[in-house]
This record gives sequence, C-alpha cells and structure tokens, in this order.
Amino acid sequence: MDIVGQHIPLEIHEIASGTPVFDWTVPKQWTIRDAFVKNSRGERVIDFRAHNLHVVSYSCPVDTRLTLADLRPHLHSDPEHPDWIPYRTSYYSEDWGFCLAHSALQALPDDDYTVCIDSTLEDGKLIWGECLIPGATSDEIVISTHICHPSLANDNLSGIAVSIELAKSLLAASGSYYSVRILFIPGTIGSIVWLATNVERLQTIRHGLIAVNLGDTGHLHYKRSRRGHAEIDRVVEYVLHRRKDDCTVIDFSPYGYDERQFCSPGINLPFGCLSRTPYGQFPEYHTSADNMRFVRPEALAHSLDAYREIIQVLNRNGRFQNLQPMCEPQLGKRGLYGSIGGRSDAKERQMAMLWVLNFSDGEHSLLDIAERAGIDFEVIADAAETLTEHGLLARCSGSNA
Amino acid sequence: MDIVGQHIPLEIHEIASGTPVFDWTVPKQWTIRDAFVKNSRGERVIDFRAHNLHVVSYSCPVDTRLTLADLRPHLHSDPEHPDWIPYRTSYYSEDWGFCLAHSALQALPDDDYTVCIDSTLEDGKLIWGECLIPGATSDEIVISTHICHPSLANDNLSGIAVSIELAKSLLAASGSYYSVRILFIPGTIGSIVWLATNVERLQTIRHGLIAVNLGDTGHLHYKRSRRGHAEIDRVVEYVLHRRKDDCTVIDFSPYGYDERQFCSPGINLPFGCLSRTPYGQFPEYHTSADNMRFVRPEALAHSLDAYREIIQVLNRNGRFQNLQPMCEPQLGKRGLYGSIGGRSDAKERQMAMLWVLNFSDGEHSLLDIAERAGIDFEVIADAAETLTEHGLLARCSGSNA
Amino acid sequence: MDIVGQHIPLEIHEIASGTPVFDWTVPKQWTIRDAFVKNSRGERVIDFRAHNLHVVSYSCPVDTRLTLADLRPHLHSDPEHPDWIPYRTSYYSEDWGFCLAHSALQALPDDDYTVCIDSTLEDGKLIWGECLIPGATSDEIVISTHICHPSLANDNLSGIAVSIELAKSLLAASGSYYSVRILFIPGTIGSIVWLATNVERLQTIRHGLIAVNLGDTGHLHYKRSRRGHAEIDRVVEYVLHRRKDDCTVIDFSPYGYDERQFCSPGINLPFGCLSRTPYGQFPEYHTSADNMRFVRPEALAHSLDAYREIIQVLNRNGRFQNLQPMCEPQLGKRGLYGSIGGRSDAKERQMAMLWVLNFSDGEHSLLDIAERAGIDFEVIADAAETLTEHGLLARCSGSNA
Repeated sequence: MDIVGQHIPLEIHEIASGTPVFDWTVPKQWTIRDAFVKNSRGERVIDFRAHNLHVVSYSCPVDTRLTLADLRPHLHSDPEHPDWIPYRTSYYSEDWGFCLAHSALQALPDDDYTVCIDSTLEDGKLIWGECLIPGATSDEIVISTHICHPSLANDNLSGIAVSIELAKSLLAASGSYYSVRILFIPGTIGSIVWLATNVERLQTIRHGLIAVNLGDTGHLHYKRSRRGHAEIDRVVEYVLHRRKDDCTVIDFSPYGYDERQFCSPGINLPFGCLSRTPYGQFPEYHTSADNMRFVRPEALAHSLDAYREIIQVLNRNGRFQNLQPMCEPQLGKRGLYGSIGGRSDAKERQMAMLWVLNFSDGEHSLLDIAERAGIDFEVIADAAETLTEHGLLARCSGSNA
Repeated sequence: MDIVGQHIPLEIHEIASGTPVFDWTVPKQWTIRDAFVKNSRGERVIDFRAHNLHVVSYSCPVDTRLTLADLRPHLHSDPEHPDWIPYRTSYYSEDWGFCLAHSALQALPDDDYTVCIDSTLEDGKLIWGECLIPGATSDEIVISTHICHPSLANDNLSGIAVSIELAKSLLAASGSYYSVRILFIPGTIGSIVWLATNVERLQTIRHGLIAVNLGDTGHLHYKRSRRGHAEIDRVVEYVLHRRKDDCTVIDFSPYGYDERQFCSPGINLPFGCLSRTPYGQFPEYHTSADNMRFVRPEALAHSLDAYREIIQVLNRNGRFQNLQPMCEPQLGKRGLYGSIGGRSDAKERQMAMLWVLNFSDGEHSLLDIAERAGIDFEVIADAAETLTEHGLLARCSGSNA
Repeated sequence: MDIVGQHIPLEIHEIASGTPVFDWTVPKQWTIRDAFVKNSRGERVIDFRAHNLHVVSYSCPVDTRLTLADLRPHLHSDPEHPDWIPYRTSYYSEDWGFCLAHSALQALPDDDYTVCIDSTLEDGKLIWGECLIPGATSDEIVISTHICHPSLANDNLSGIAVSIELAKSLLAASGSYYSVRILFIPGTIGSIVWLATNVERLQTIRHGLIAVNLGDTGHLHYKRSRRGHAEIDRVVEYVLHRRKDDCTVIDFSPYGYDERQFCSPGINLPFGCLSRTPYGQFPEYHTSADNMRFVRPEALAHSLDAYREIIQVLNRNGRFQNLQPMCEPQLGKRGLYGSIGGRSDAKERQMAMLWVLNFSDGEHSLLDIAERAGIDFEVIADAAETLTEHGLLARCSGSNA
C-alpha cells in the first residue's frame, strides 16, 4: 500500500478482525517475522529470509525439533517442476508448513531439524486501498485488483502495476464522463469486505473489470460478466475486436477471481475479468517461477492500452435523444449538410450524423449505432458530439445496457 | 378398465350420453353383440367372433339379405396389404360396414348374403379411469393414454401397458415432488370430456405427456407441446439426449392424438407426445397386423425407462433461491469446502455447488443451471439438495418454465 | 398533377411558401420559363427548350455576358458518360448553372456568351396529390411516390406510373380491408409537409411503401422499415419469396428516399421501400439516359404485380380469435370434417382449418400460421374465411405485427 501510495493518491481503509461481513467474518491478522528449518549443524536449510514463499501463508507459530519423517507432512513441493517453490496458503484452517523446491526436498538427509515459525495470528485489521478519479458524473467504473500475494509477478503484481499506470493516465486526462474507482484489495475476503461496507454505493457502479494476470506473453482473455451482454461486455468485445488483438472471450462461470463476489446473485454487478493467460492456465501460476522474468514490459503496456481504450469507449458511449425527432432536422441551415459526395471521410461523417439522428431515440447507445451502421465508434461519437453542440441531441442519463 | 384395475388402483368415472361437453355432446353408447355375413349355405364368411375388427366400429344395426353387388360398398379392405384386416370406424355418421382381408374379399363369390349386425346405439354412458399417485404437492404431471381400440397392440395397448407399469413403479417409490395422474380415456371425446369436467383442476397441471405407440421397434419420437419450450419439452429433450437414444424431436402440429385437445388454444397445457414410431408412419397402423407379434417386450421396457427418467428429472428440477445471495456464502465453516483439487468427482461436486449458488436467483431452474454449467443434471440436483440441507437454498414454488 | 388526375381521382393539396413544417420551412416556389447560353453569333449552344435538364433546378435568375472561363464554373457535365446530360439541383443555396453533355462542353470555343435564366423564386406554394381508395376500415396502407423530377423515367416517372395503375386496379376491385392512400409528393420536403400536416392521421397508418425505380430491368430490392420486422416487412418478404422472384432484401439505413422521413425516430412508421435497382446503383441514375428507352413495360408490369400481391396479402392477413377455443370445435356437425384422407387438396384445406383454429388465439396472424404450418397463405386465409362464416372465428382489430 505504501508503494502504491507513492505513485497515485490512495485512500487507505481498514476493518477490524472479527467484524461480520455478510456470511463471513474478518479474519485475524497474520504477521510473519521469521521462519526456518535448521539442520542439526544449525544451518538454515529452509529460510523465509531467502524467499517468502518458503512459509505456508497463514501458518500458526511453531518452535520445535522434528525428525525428517515427522517434518515431512509439513513440506510441500512440486515434483513436476523440481526447481520451483510452490505457493501455498492455509486460510481458514489452523496449520503450518514450508514450501521448497522438489530438488531441495529430495536432498534433505535424515536429521533432527529445528523448526521455527515466528508468526502471530491475532486480532488486528484488514486494510485496502482505493484511488478515485472523479468524472463528470458520480456513476462509476470500478477496476479491482487483488493485493494478497504481490511477490508473485503475473498473478498479482501485474494487476497492481497496470492499475497504477491506468490511474496515472486517467488523472492526467480530463473530461471523463464516469468516475473511476480503482480497488487494491485482498482476494475474496477483500471484495466481500468492500461490498459489505459499500452496499449503498453499488447502485452507482455502472461497469467493472477485474484486473489480473496482465504481464505474461499470452493473448488477452475476457471473461464476461454474469449478465453476459452488459455494456462492459459489449464494449470490451468491441475494443478487442477493433484492435484486431488475438483474444479469447468466455462466458461467466462462478469460479476464478473476485468476479465470483461482484457477480454473486445478490450483487450481480456487470463485472468482467480482463486478463492475459487466465487463472491456473500457465505452469508458473502460484510458484516462484511467476517472477519478474516471467512478466514482460511490452505485455504490460499492451494490457494497459486495452484498459485505456475500453474506458475511453465507455466514457464516450451513451444513449442520446434526438431533440428534433419528427422527420430529419434541416442540417443545411446549420452548416452540417452538403458534404455528401465530397471526400470519403466527409461522406462518412455525414452518414454518421444521419445514423446518430435516426437511432438516438433514447434506446440505442452509440455503440449499438456504430455496430448497426458499420461505422467506427469514434466517428459515430464525433457525430454525436457535433450534433449535441448544435442542440440537436441530448445525452440520456443512466446506464446504456 | 377391469383388467387395468387388477394391476393398479383405478378410479372409474362416467358421464351420460347427451351431456354437452364444450362444443361436443357425449355420444350414444354403442354395444356390439354379434356381426356376420353368411353365404347362401349359411356359412359365416365374415365373422365378428373370429376377429373384432371385422365390423366397422359404431355400425348401426342391420338384418337383411343382399347380393354381393349391394353388399360390396359396405366391405372395406386394403389391397396393398391383402392379408390384413383394416380397422375402420363410423363415429358421428350413421352407417355400417365390414372389414376384411383383401384376399378374402376377392374370394367372395356372387351369392345372396345374409347380413347381420346385432348392435345397439342408445343412451348410455362414457367411462374412463384415473390413477392418481400423490406427491409432496398437489401440482400434477398428467400421463394420458387412449383406450378406445385396445385390440390394436401398438397403437393402443402399448400405451396402456407402459402407463400401468409406470404407475406401479411410481406407487412403489416415495418422495415424489409432483402428484402424477394417469388417464385411461377414449381418444378425442375422452379428453374433451375429461377437460370439460376438470376445468378447475387445469391450473394445477404442470406437465403432461400423451403415451402412445410405445411397443414397436422404431426409435423414440417426441412431439413438442404447443408452447414449444415448456419445461416438459426441455426435460424430455434433455433426457433423450442424455440417454444417447436415437430419437426424433418435432414441433407441435394440431393433428395426431389427444395433444390436439390438451393443446387447443383455450386449454394450452404443456403436453407433449412421447411415442416410438408416430401416428400413421408404420404400415401396420390401424390394421390387424398391429398385434402382439408387432410389439416387442424390450421396446416396451425401453419406453418405460424413458418415461421414468423424465418423471424423475421433473421431480428434481426446480427453481431455488440462494438464501445467502450477497457474495458467496462461506462454505468452509459448513464443511462444504476444500474438496477442490481432490478427486475429480469431488471437484465436480464443488463446482456444482458454486453454479447452483450463483444461479439460484429464483429465475433459473436446475436444468438451466446444468445445461449452462455443462454438468450432469443429477450432480446439480445433488448439490441443490446438500445446499438446501445446510440452509443455504430454498425451493421456489410454482412452475419452472 | 393534371396528367395523374386524368387517370385516377386525385385530391390536390397545397401549402404556402414560408409555412414552418417541423424543423423546416416550405421553400419559395421556383418557376422556370426559359434558359439558354448563346454564343456571340446569337446561337443557343445550351437550350432549356431542347432539354429541361440543361438548367440546374432551382437556379436563380441570370442575365449577363461571360467569357467561357467565367461561365465554366457554372457548367456541369459527366466525363465518364460524355453523351449524357447530368441532372443537378441547387436547393437551399442560391446559385445557378447549366448541365450539358461532356462532349458538348468540350466543343465550346472561347467566346463571349450571353447567359440567361428566366426564372423566378418567390413566395408561392407547394402542391401534392392524394388518391384515397376506401376500404372496410379506416386503417390505411400508404404508398408514397415522389414527383419532383418526372422527366427522369425510372427514378421518378416509373413510381408515378405504377402507383396510378395500382390505384386503378384497387378502385376496380372491392372488399379491401384497408383503405389505401397513394401520395404523389415532392421528395424530402413533400413528405415532411405531409407528415407535419397529417400528424393526427399517423396512428391509423398500418403499413407503408415507398414506390420508386420500378421500370428498369434489374431485379426487385426491398429495403426494410426501421422496425425491421414489421408486418409490411414480413409480408413483402413472404410475397417476394413465394413469387420466386430474384430479389435482394436489405436492412433499413437512414439514407435513400422518403423512408428517411417516414422512418425518422419521432415518426417511426412501418414503411419499407420496394424498388427495382436502388438509388444510385445504375449508371443512368440522375442523367438524361434515365429516359423512356431505359424503362421497360414488362418491368413496370412485374413491379405492379408485386405491389398488388403485397396489398392482397396485407388485406387478408389478420389476427383472429377462435370462438370455441376449449378443445377443438366439432367440425363434423358443421359439415367441415371428413375430407381428410380424400384428395390431397381437401386434406390440405382440412389441415389449414386445424392450424387456423389452434393458433387463432389473438396473437398469431394468418401469415404467422401459414409460415409455421408450411401451407400457402391463401389456403390458410381461405380456411379462416370458412371458419369465420361458420361462426368459429372472429377477426381482431388493430395491427398484426
């Protein structure tokens, strides 16, 4: 949170352990100071200081001596990738353990081992961060990224990095229609806490994206919201298609990241998940190999561009009302006519105006019109802007879906 | 009716000739005692006692002497199948006649024939039988089978036989959600009488099937209800598909069996027709060749299985309400979590729970969820049962369509 | 208008210049008496009397002498078709000009030219004609054809000619359900004027077609109404398909002929455009080559047949209510049964009756039923007529879409 706060204005929130949140309770706070396994010669053969994945997250405190046989059930490795340290957690059941490379595990001799986990699990607090970039309306786009294991580079840190850069570029721009709220929250319990403490705000949330796995070299994947054809779904698919990005679009399923909570049936917000390679589909997932060599700057930049473009289309998209809906308005007396037959661009601009006028009946969004007309969204949006300036069009409030 | 009543509890109903039923009137009762054509030597050359198809059903009484030429217009045969006796009726127009094999007809010499039909057509009653197997609710599944010409084996007796066996197995089972009512009624007028005398009951009928032609060796045919996508339609199609049965599904048309009445526009109940080879599509249809050699025990058993499975899916299917719809409920504290990553079956059960929780918003039935999740219906239904036992789910009342 | 009025009864309407109509104003009236360019020898080298396309329509008065260089910006030709005179207008911007064959333009020597356009542009009136053929109801079908440049044969005169013949045949027939109104109006401003002065009538208009380009040898094109699946759209597509005409059907777009006004969002009437080769897709379009040699009598007759057949189907189509909707009515006692099994035609008529009875629930039109049953519309409509005569059916009022 401190590092994020050095890059963008961040509001830090906290909630005390034990607080009920919907069907859940905010858990105790886990603090880890040190953890190691020493052999009988006093050498640290597994050392938390060397790599923080060595200790199973949320392990309870331990201070004991064990034979290898007794220690063994607490040691986790991945035989298929013998050099990688797996990432394990023990949320919600009191246990402890160490993770290590399978090659290192196999090299451990029979010995008496000193085992120490210097952790505490006690009442404390859960914290999260929010960055709000205000727009013309209080209607919000929410970008949510998890922060619970940032030492994993793609599945976790990449989402944080892209979100920070996105926030910076939105703060630098102006004239955004929507307010954009970026959430930096622990997975699952963080989104449950946020939703439980923001129930009154939910009705102002128009669109949402879960930002995750944005640095690997795979192509973009979009997992639709539970609604399936919400505006966010249509805009993401339009943008990915327009960019001619290689991409895969899949339907919502109730498993994955925090879309599970944002799309639970009582919440049912239009949240999709835009990632590169999804959850569990790259071998480095949840291992020490998901590191800074695995994520690529050009992949991060490409992901950031897609997010920016999506937010731009969301901002420009809207339903409009033609204020002269009885027959066509006379464009000529307003200097808006006469370009047909001129250059091809002028003709397209003219046609865009006619399409926008004809279908701005309060029911069709500009994206609907662009798709029906077969004209690029930006040309349609420019036409709507021109017509609005000439008093022929007014933007409708509310969602466009 | 007596024979049916020896196998299952049967309630017998009757209605007097002359009673108006909707646009119709209950007809007079036809009683046939004997019918024959004798040659001049006094030999019965056509004899009702030899085969009851020899007399045209509903023939008026006759006692006369005729030449072959005068008799001929009253003799019906099928030249394409010269050894089969056709089945003919003369409902609703006063007439009389005999049916015989075409070969027998051609062998008749010129002669003076004594013609006798010892029948009466007089005020009496129409009877039908009903077997009700009570379920947890008074909502009903109705299975309707016609009984008007049971000497035909496939088109008629097979439907009666399968319905009796179905009733037996439902009576032996327990815990059915729906009450199941099995109707043994004459075709057309029987369903009109039943509907006219049960108007107040129609609103409790949730699903219906016309059971007919269930013993031939052809594959299953399902003719959809007039509604086309009623729950009965979706369940039958799901079950036939899941069984990997060869089957044909066709849309409703206003011709065929009693679905014509159950699906008339003022009734419009969700009744489909599940048969093997449909109406008129096998050459033996309505002839003496539709006999006990034409129907096969394994075909009857296969039909019965399909009916049983359909009723089982109907009973388990339902719309449910997630009682903890704000974010996911915490499955771990209820001992329902943790199996993911374990055996494949356990993982599927876990996913089934998440699907059921996410889509149990009172709008999606378990069949909707099973189809969307790509998980077998029974696994989804088991998950719903488990979640209901843990107080996380409640079944909605009413139809699921 | 005078010539049209010699063929059919025509009501002439007028509106004064300067009258506001929606966002527009009725323009001044342009009168052209003579126009020419004379060379220094006094010879008319461009002469309005020789061809009325020589003067740009709506040219302001001119009387001056110019060198060829100064005259040149006012001369319009088409280098791609050097022998054709293009058709140009200067509505809504004060200008003047001459059109001529490109070969004639190139032959003009340097000279001093006398230029004269003897026109007036002053307050006057806009006129249009209407022919109303009354039907059984005041619900209307509107056929609209433009009259603004009748010296072009396909794009303009063909629509007038077919509309006149259509009116004649409708006047000669009887028993039409709809009233048919045929509009002879100037393009764009004419339809705006008509709509602005008939706002209260719009709710009685059930169907509309723009009649244009009906004499060329291309195949029929139907451009759907803005609604896309209005009854007019379905009927036109049904008729074109049934005729086995080569035809092209395209979706609505807000450009073309007067469907732009009839389908503007505040009007949104179900108007399609049925033409042969559409707007701008034949090279002769808006040139002197769109003349009486370009249109063919057999093409005009073929177009007229399609219009007639469409109006006939619209007249017969309707939603009906089965007055005996509880089970099937007893057709036998009304002499309507018994033909099944007879000739194939009788069987189809019988099936048509059953389809009409089953789906006449006030929601399905006869066209819906014909398409669902796979039976020709006229057979279905005949069945509805028979059933109506027997008191089993009643036509619903209102639109069928």
